[in-house]
Amino acid sequence: MSDVATQEYPAGSVGLVTPRHVHFDTPLTLACGRTLPSYDIVYETYGTLNADASNAVLICHALSGHHHAAGYHNAEEAAKGKPGWWDVAIGPGKVIDTNRYFVVASNNLGGCHGSTGPSSINPDTGKPWGPDFPIVAVRDWVKVQAQLADHLGVGQWAAVVGGSLGGMQVLRWSIDHPERVANAVVIASAPKLSAQNIAFNEVARQAILRDPDFHGGHYYEKGVVPERGLTLARMVGHITYLSDDAMHQKFGRDLRSEKYKYGFDAEFQVESYLRYQGESFSRRFDANTYLLMTRVLDYFDPARDYEHDLAKTFARATCRFLVLSFTTDWRFSPERSREIVDALVQAGKRVSYAEVDAPQGHDSFLLDNPRYLAIFRAFMARVAEERGIGDAA
Amino acid sequence: MSDVATQEYPAGSVGLVTPRHVHFDTPLTLACGRTLPSYDIVYETYGTLNADASNAVLICHALSGHHHAAGYHNAEEAAKGKPGWWDVAIGPGKVIDTNRYFVVASNNLGGCHGSTGPSSINPDTGKPWGPDFPIVAVRDWVKVQAQLADHLGVGQWAAVVGGSLGGMQVLRWSIDHPERVANAVVIASAPKLSAQNIAFNEVARQAILRDPDFHGGHYYEKGVVPERGLTLARMVGHITYLSDDAMHQKFGRDLRSEKYKYGFDAEFQVESYLRYQGESFSRRFDANTYLLMTRVLDYFDPARDYEHDLAKTFARATCRFLVLSFTTDWRFSPERSREIVDALVQAGKRVSYAEVDAPQGHDSFLLDNPRYLAIFRAFMARVAEERGIGDAA
Repeated sequence: MSDVATQEYPAGSVGLVTPRHVHFDTPLTLACGRTLPSYDIVYETYGTLNADASNAVLICHALSGHHHAAGYHNAEEAAKGKPGWWDVAIGPGKVIDTNRYFVVASNNLGGCHGSTGPSSINPDTGKPWGPDFPIVAVRDWVKVQAQLADHLGVGQWAAVVGGSLGGMQVLRWSIDHPERVANAVVIASAPKLSAQNIAFNEVARQAILRDPDFHGGHYYEKGVVPERGLTLARMVGHITYLSDDAMHQKFGRDLRSEKYKYGFDAEFQVESYLRYQGESFSRRFDANTYLLMTRVLDYFDPARDYEHDLAKTFARATCRFLVLSFTTDWRFSPERSREIVDALVQAGKRVSYAEVDAPQGHDSFLLDNPRYLAIFRAFMARVAEERGIGDAA
Repeated sequence: MSDVATQEYPAGSVGLVTPRHVHFDTPLTLACGRTLPSYDIVYETYGTLNADASNAVLICHALSGHHHAAGYHNAEEAAKGKPGWWDVAIGPGKVIDTNRYFVVASNNLGGCHGSTGPSSINPDTGKPWGPDFPIVAVRDWVKVQAQLADHLGVGQWAAVVGGSLGGMQVLRWSIDHPERVANAVVIASAPKLSAQNIAFNEVARQAILRDPDFHGGHYYEKGVVPERGLTLARMVGHITYLSDDAMHQKFGRDLRSEKYKYGFDAEFQVESYLRYQGESFSRRFDANTYLLMTRVLDYFDPARDYEHDLAKTFARATCRFLVLSFTTDWRFSPERSREIVDALVQAGKRVSYAEVDAPQGHDSFLLDNPRYLAIFRAFMARVAEERGIGDAA
């Protein structure tokens, strides 16, 4: 990060960021039983790793997220005011303070933003993996993130942090690598999906799988993408990210023109908004990756290995936990976070919990909510203090 | 209804039922501004109209409902134990007691079960109406039901009754024809859709509209049906009919086989259930009708004509109201029913309200919930008493 470049960007921004790639050729045995002989991971870092490597923070992304969590890739992004997806929380002086912390954000295996995934070339065939890409699991991602930590010289994360599906990775870190996580921040997450959660994922998958342009996942070779299916998948997903209240405040029953037109064109504002969201997503995201990510969510259920007892599941965890939820989140409601908290308490772990009043539903974890960020900030400040992490500014 | 036939059917059943058709050739001017020169309506009746025609009850159906509300069309239905959709509430000795009441259930205009709709032949072209069928509104349905009442010799309904979209028709009756409704039963309904409700409808519509087999609504001529789209539409709809709790109790995270198979085949019970529901619906329902019915829901907003003041909207209503909601219904939550009740109270109308504890979500209005049926029964018994309607049994 160059000081000169930083000056062109808003205060609190990490400025210009260049993604990095790492190639791993240690074979990776996956939860599904298959093995990837080698793979690439794209990642970004913000801030500087200190001498004793005690200030590293791992950011875990959610369903449609990626490695670009903060700052700008180029002047165009900056001009448009479109920084990385969690710029609200990451930067100099921000909650995850890059003057103190060395922050790492990677794109998960199976993704479509630079890490090896279904749209990558399968070296055995010379063609895109497509539907032959193995189904990955949260535990596989954590294995890969551990490889990345080794690569970066990080023995123990000061904190592992994530919202939604990202929070599930945090939970998995605390269970599978207790010695490598000092603190865990689990936001708007759940210990496993409910039947309703799976049902919504299934509708999204069926929309893609039944799209004639999907071609059984081999659409790359056909020069098409299952845009229809991916648009529908995102539309239904998007409804679950927003609260009923948020939708009401944002759109109500507002019409695009004054009178009813009595037809099926977008008539209400919420319709054109959803179509736009779905269509623009379908142009930038890979359908096979979307299928994969929803399945990762469905399968996540760490207590399966511990007699379905979540307290037992956390028995080996040693980190301190911060668990956060949002009042109007109905995708992963506060009740789901309380399941995590109750199990941690029962297991005798150190845990703080806050249910934050927020009207925006599940999306709240990405937004600038003062109370949310204040609680999160206090926790991260304490982490820095306890680990003797100084301020480089 | 023949006594002999009744003996073959379960106690409390209206027995064998034969649908009737009526052709109306009085031109019908619709809310959208277009005029239907003539149309057919299919309907069923249960029980006997008394001498002073004081015992008639109108049943209004919901999104995917029809005229077959009780009893059996044939021995096969009886053998399968598949009576009409509201058999739980309609029959001799039941809540809507056919020993007392003359019950009328019709298929709404635009439907696909025998009343004129998009799949009917347009007399001007000799081809199915398809997308050229006019968009109808709840007020149009009520006009048609009023024609049907005239045809049957019913001046005033003892009660107009309906759940969900059916409840909206009940509200419209009370506003547009106050003198023709003595009592109104509005179950699991809302005074208008929320942005979230419209959003779910929009996903369903886009699934159909974007299906390549939809052919702009002219699929009849092509010998195909947009099965994919209609399946997805029903899947997403179905999720909103069930509560999170109901899904949890019914399926939890139960797998179809013991172990994860790591693929996109139906793995969890809830997935195969949803697919089955969607696919079987797509074989028995018309896609153009589904589009139409969701639009009827979106457009319903009677307060639009009364300065968006729901109390003013009900000013002319004279009937007594029973409003019922279910605790876990998140499609039309108790809050939405309370909006109706509050407006009725403000308008000085007679209204009883009960929020019934029920785990099954929106679908509760179709189910055998003792407290629900007891409240409903008491109301209908009082109606009979006040109108001097005797028991024919």
